[in-house]
This record gives sequence, structure tokens and C-alpha cells, in this order.
Amino acid sequence: MSQKKKLVVVGSVAIDWVITPVSEREESVGGAATYFAMAASHHTAVDLVGVVGKDFPEHALQDLRTAGVGLEGLEVIEDGLTFRWKGRYHENMNQRDTLETHLNCFEQFEPKLPESYREAELLFLANIQPSLQLQVLEQMKTRPRLVGLDTMNLWIDVASDDLRAVVSKVDVLTINEEEALQLTGATSLLAAAREIRELGPKILVIKRGEYGALLFGPGSEELFAAPAIPLEKVDDPTGAGDCFAGGFMGYLSTAETLDGPTLRRAVIWGSVMASFCVQGFSYDRLRDLDRAQIDARYKAFVDLTSFV
Amino acid sequence: MSQKKKLVVVGSVAIDWVITPVSEREESVGGAATYFAMAASHHTAVDLVGVVGKDFPEHALQDLRTAGVGLEGLEVIEDGLTFRWKGRYHENMNQRDTLETHLNCFEQFEPKLPESYREAELLFLANIQPSLQLQVLEQMKTRPRLVGLDTMNLWIDVASDDLRAVVSKVDVLTINEEEALQLTGATSLLAAAREIRELGPKILVIKRGEYGALLFGPGSEELFAAPAIPLEKVDDPTGAGDCFAGGFMGYLSTAETLDGPTLRRAVIWGSVMASFCVQGFSYDRLRDLDRAQIDARYKAFVDLTSFV
Repeated sequence: MSQKKKLVVVGSVAIDWVITPVSEREESVGGAATYFAMAASHHTAVDLVGVVGKDFPEHALQDLRTAGVGLEGLEVIEDGLTFRWKGRYHENMNQRDTLETHLNCFEQFEPKLPESYREAELLFLANIQPSLQLQVLEQMKTRPRLVGLDTMNLWIDVASDDLRAVVSKVDVLTINEEEALQLTGATSLLAAAREIRELGPKILVIKRGEYGALLFGPGSEELFAAPAIPLEKVDDPTGAGDCFAGGFMGYLSTAETLDGPTLRRAVIWGSVMASFCVQGFSYDRLRDLDRAQIDARYKAFVDLTSFV
Repeated sequence: MSQKKKLVVVGSVAIDWVITPVSEREESVGGAATYFAMAASHHTAVDLVGVVGKDFPEHALQDLRTAGVGLEGLEVIEDGLTFRWKGRYHENMNQRDTLETHLNCFEQFEPKLPESYREAELLFLANIQPSLQLQVLEQMKTRPRLVGLDTMNLWIDVASDDLRAVVSKVDVLTINEEEALQLTGATSLLAAAREIRELGPKILVIKRGEYGALLFGPGSEELFAAPAIPLEKVDDPTGAGDCFAGGFMGYLSTAETLDGPTLRRAVIWGSVMASFCVQGFSYDRLRDLDRAQIDARYKAFVDLTSFV
């Protein structure tokens, strides 16, 4: 009998065409699950569930394997193409326009968890259609110790009921600031957080890009603000939120408890991984990290925020 | 011989007409020096230099006096009107449009420091025309222990040389994020900070509104990020930056040293006063504060940011 999986992520694996004001990469390996796994792999064993086509590069599979990411749940469609996204970032790198989206084999994607994944300790439902996120939850044989979920504005617009259904079943929601307001119709983040936590998740992380993140929970009054670390140069913001989630969940999978202080450290670990993510295209910077660099960046967050 | 003044602020005193998405106040006492002084007064003795007209309300003078603000340097023009500004905030309260500006007696303003102010220990040059800020500096008989300066995008546009001249003579610059980029033409805050500090100020505070503030200095590598505290309801953002500066300089005027840890605490005190400021129109909330409320808010910032 196989050992219980520590952390399973289900989500997109993609090939992106990323255009920034200063540079461009046409075949940039991406996808929420890819970024999540590359970030989480620095903390824990992580297994990925997703789908790619025949065009998905072997070097990327090799990078994932080298990082220790389990690929038993990665379906390869031999007569299909990988999900492709093309986007252009604005001058300030905070906004982007989607130029093209080709779902390709992702259109028919029905996540199937390998048997050994169905008792995973932690599960992360990266941003995909909420109905698929629900399907994944239904495949679990035991309730994971912690289930996290990410989503996007598209699903708030077109699949609001399914989204609310799946949000009600998870422990952690990670969501952008604007999306938190959009989902709830609230005008303040405090009000949005209260509404979201009434839907189900006792832990809420509101992502604010270059301004950091807010953590609500686990207690009803607990609130933590983490800055992002100012960087001289951002190469490619793609995947920052997914790497945040990977660092956050990866750290939690190694933690004995899920109390307030542990969750705060997890937010910093998420911020650490997101900060590396944006310093390169694709997962380049995450792939090439060693432990000393990661620990030094965590220490930089301590220095950045201490004042007492 | 009179005692040395602890902290002198020179800047605008105004009557604002503030329109927010939910409310409005037609005769809202404002001005950068007013806000600064009301915030600083909770930490230290503060003296104000400015000008008002015959329409400036007696109750506001009384509020300032009650707060302990010295008004020897507040000129009253008996046949003139007070500087008036009318503005409307957008739905998200982060942006605003100026609807009307009437300089009135402020147009002829030539700051004259009372004799006893010219040896002030700390001096803050709130946002006015850079040439006037220079005039104030020239009136000082001794170099203050710390000179702070605030400015705005208008002066970057129309008085760039004067602005750079006065910036080169101060110790602390407080400036908005967008203005820091505009002043330097840099594309990252780190690059902007480096350029600004090369101009002169060894301490730089970049204000980010609802996202908090960044402190650069005093050492070349020292960097501190403070969040703003999430608030359920913002009544009126007018003066938040000035109250930040008031809390910051007010605290520093009581501090024995100006080392890194002291400056970090000063940023938090600035954030505390700014957070109160926006919870009411004008300086209402600042006027009505007691010490226990202020200390509780500081403690809330500790709770909001601690993770080690």
C-alpha cells in the first residue's frame, strides 16, 4: 500500500506566450498547477493532476521530476495540444491583456485522481472551472486535513453558483483583492472577508500583487498583513499568485498545527516564493533556487517588517 | 528667552468642500499644516505657520489651541479669504478629482517664522510651493535636528528645479508612490528611492495610501514596509498623508535617537494617525482621541504585522 500523499494540486498546465514591456517569451511553460508545484516542491512532496498535449516539452517534464513533483496524475493526450495562453503586460506590470486563449486538450479535461492521491493530506484546487473543482473533491476518499482553492473573475461572472458551492467546502480561499470585492459586492475588504468566511472557508488570503497579502483567520478576529518585497526588476509576473499558494500550502504541509502563527508564517513563505517567481520568466528562478537563497529571502521579509 | 520649539510645521490651512460617494461636508477645515499639527499634537508640542482669512472659523482656532498647537505663526488676513479646495472622491476612495481651487490669501503667502521658531528642533515643510519651502529654511538660525518635506505632483511639473533644490537640503522626504516615480522617471520604487536619496534626503518615506508605506533609510540598505490597517469604513481620505507626517515627525520629536528602529516606529505612528484621520471628516476623529485609543491602535499594528 502506498504512502499517503502529502500535497496534491489539481489545475492547469500550460504553454504561455508572455509579452512584457521589455521582453518576450513565446514558449513559456506555465499553468497554475505547474507554478504551484514548482513553488511547493521547495517545502514538501507535491503531486500534480492536470493534462497536456503532445506539444508539451520534455524538458519541462524533466524540470518537474527533478523538483520531485509527482506526475502520475498528469494526463498526456497524444493527439492533442496543450492549453495555450498569450498575454501582454502593461508598462507597470500590474495589469495585463489576454491576447489569445486556446483551451485545446484542457477543454475536455476531467480530472481523475490516481487512487493513491485520494487520501492526500492536503489538497489544492488551483484555478479551474468550479464544477471540476467539485468533481475533484468528490473523488477524495478521506477529507484532507486542509483544502485550499483559488479562482478568478471569469468564474465569478459565469459560474457563480458552482463557485459558491465549492467555496463552501474548502478551508482556505486565495483570491485577488478585486475578485474578493466582485464576489461579494462588498465595498471594503473587511466586509468582503466577513461574507466569504460566512460562505465556508475559515481561512482567507487576499492577494494584492506588489502590495502583498492579507490573511483572515483562523479565528474570527485574526488579521495579518504581509508586504511584498520591493524588487529592482520584475521579469514576468505570470504565476505569482500560484507560487504564493504553493509556498503557503507547501509550508503548511510540513507544519504540525494550523494555528494563527503557523498560518502567518505560511503567508510569508508564499510571499517568498512569489517574489522569486516574478524574477524570471516561467518557473526559471524557482527551478534554480537553493535552500540558502530561500532562507535568505525569508530573512529579508523579517528585516522588512520588524519594528518592535 | 523663550524655550526652543520642539516641532514647527509650515504649510496650508484651508477650508475644504469634500464630496465622497456617501457623504459631503461643505465647510471642512483642512490644509496640510492643520492635519499635520492635529496629528503631531498627540505626541509633542507643535507650532504652526500658515495663513487664513476672515472666514476661518473660530471653532477651528479653538480646536487647534485645545490640542496645544501654537498659533503665533498663523497669520490672519482680515480683508482676505482662506484657501479653499473642493474635491470629489471616486467610488473606491483612492482617487479624487479637484473641482475647484481658490488660493485666496494663500496666493500672497510669504511664510514668516516668529523669532522663537527659528531655532526649532524639528521642522516640517508641508506641501507648498518649493520656493516658499526654501524661504523658510533660510529663516532658520540653527539647522534643525531633522527637517522633513512633503510635496505633490504639481510642483514636480511646474517647479522641478526649485523642488530639487529644497529636496537636497532636507533629511526626510515623504512622497506618494506615483510621485516618486514621476520625480525620478524610474520604473521601480527601489530605483526611485536610490535616486531621491542621492539628491539629499537620507530618509525617504513612500506613501501608498491604503497599502501603507515604505521607509528607506537611514542606512543605505535599510528598508521597512508598513501596512495600512484595513478599515471597515473610510469617511474622508483628505489629509491622511499629512496626518501620517504629523504622527511620524511628532513621534521623532520625542525620540532620543534617529536610528533605524526609531524611524520604523515613527512610520507606524504615522500610520496610526493616518488611520484615525480617514475615519472622520476633517480632523474630527483626531480631535476626539484619547491616549488609550491611540495606544490600542498602535497595538493593532503590532498584531497586524507580527509573524516570527
